[in-house]
Amino acid sequence: MFREMAVVGVGLIGGSLALAARKAGLVETVTGVDADPIHREVALAAGMVDRVAAGLGADLSRAGLVVLAVPVAEIVSLLPEVARRVEDGCLVTDVGSVKGPILAAGDAAFPDGRFVAGHPIAGQERSGPAAARPDLFEAANWIVTPSGLTNASAVERVSALWRGVGSTIVSMEAGWHDEVFAAVSHLPHLVAYALMDAVLGLPLGEERLQFAAGGLRDFTRVAGSHPLMWRDIFLMNRGPILRALAAYREVLAALEEAIRDGDGKALTARLARARMAREEIPHRP
Amino acid sequence: MFREMAVVGVGLIGGSLALAARKAGLVETVTGVDADPIHREVALAAGMVDRVAAGLGADLSRAGLVVLAVPVAEIVSLLPEVARRVEDGCLVTDVGSVKGPILAAGDAAFPDGRFVAGHPIAGQERSGPAAARPDLFEAANWIVTPSGLTNASAVERVSALWRGVGSTIVSMEAGWHDEVFAAVSHLPHLVAYALMDAVLGLPLGEERLQFAAGGLRDFTRVAGSHPLMWRDIFLMNRGPILRALAAYREVLAALEEAIRDGDGKALTARLARARMAREEIPHRP
Repeated sequence: MFREMAVVGVGLIGGSLALAARKAGLVETVTGVDADPIHREVALAAGMVDRVAAGLGADLSRAGLVVLAVPVAEIVSLLPEVARRVEDGCLVTDVGSVKGPILAAGDAAFPDGRFVAGHPIAGQERSGPAAARPDLFEAANWIVTPSGLTNASAVERVSALWRGVGSTIVSMEAGWHDEVFAAVSHLPHLVAYALMDAVLGLPLGEERLQFAAGGLRDFTRVAGSHPLMWRDIFLMNRGPILRALAAYREVLAALEEAIRDGDGKALTARLARARMAREEIPHRP
Repeated sequence: MFREMAVVGVGLIGGSLALAARKAGLVETVTGVDADPIHREVALAAGMVDRVAAGLGADLSRAGLVVLAVPVAEIVSLLPEVARRVEDGCLVTDVGSVKGPILAAGDAAFPDGRFVAGHPIAGQERSGPAAARPDLFEAANWIVTPSGLTNASAVERVSALWRGVGSTIVSMEAGWHDEVFAAVSHLPHLVAYALMDAVLGLPLGEERLQFAAGGLRDFTRVAGSHPLMWRDIFLMNRGPILRALAAYREVLAALEEAIRDGDGKALTARLARARMAREEIPHRP
């Protein structure tokens, strides 16, 4: 499908894509680009990539596809350099969790429409190439957010790769993607971080945490995610996150008022409605 | 240890205690009291109890121990009736998640100090007797919150039962218990309910929920808990919950400000601190 694929950022997502694409025979050669020497060593040793490089250098000239799998702010800042280094036929895609600003930067860097903005909905608690798995994208959704500029055949070729590693393709407008994920992913992470920070900050916070059971433990996976990756997501998707947060703070204030007033009826109505929301979430393995 | 134990409320906790105490040979006969005919039927059929009753009736006269395993508001309202129906030597304990108001009501109903306020830190997603398991309390903490009035030998006898089903006994002052669990259990539940309610309430909320992955799914177990049980906990532990909520809202406002101002440094500091809080939580199976 692609003779040579370059993966920039050999972490959980980039490493898993390299493993999966090789396993499925979708690529012949994979170059891994990563500033972290341990990432490079693990990626080589685990057979994810054929060769590694610390920076973009000249390594992209033979690539038929470049996948940007670094934190979202880095994707935006790398795009102009990638555009200078790849050949004319090379397609470029990304895996970032925020799409509007990345799509704008990608369209600016590739005015011929070769940039395909994407977001695979897959992840897990651990990060880095040591956590990579060839089956990470099986039964996952891969969201693609083409613009008016994006080349339809580029979308089709990149989609075929993601289909080949087991994902289902979902096409969405980039702005709506960012609103959706502000609500179902970015806000939950923000809320979990805030909760853990608040509990630790209470008098004798550490002592209290000794008694944490299921209720709090469910939040810890979320708040245990990579702080710098999430800082960038929060800053880059500022508008949609602030809108979702405003709605959340309104609900929280209403619950607080019901508790303060001892209003059991209002409380029951809200708790029952929240419980219903859960039924809307599709069950996946 | 006790010839006859009466369990009022044969749900997950009451049913599991009945199963575990019988299995460990700590009780001879168990009476299950539950207003729900399905709970009574399941408890009898599963061999959790020897006989069942829909209400307190005369069934408590032979009991050496009465365990109140109903929602917290019901525990408080049942205590005076239990006091009228049991014999003088009978011990009474509870499993409620809020201890201050229950301890006060128990001391008022049993001025001779026979009421032992307790809280086993065990639970799971599903509720009801069908979810009960004899190993639910193995390696769990059982918190006891005696008052100045509580009879020390009553505490020792009830503690021996909980030790016998595998729990570790932790003694705490009731007011501190309620502050601790407001932070590590009640607030997380409130936050999870608020999040699910807020996301569902956004424009096209149901459609957004179709894209929920790990981040939000970790919240759903918590917000899936029994709404009426949690309503009562929120109302009964109002003071400590409102204090913990105030601290949480402060942290949330600071995070919001950092996002709005694009202050990456402040955001990183808070996210890293929140991540550290997670390391404080003990790992249990």
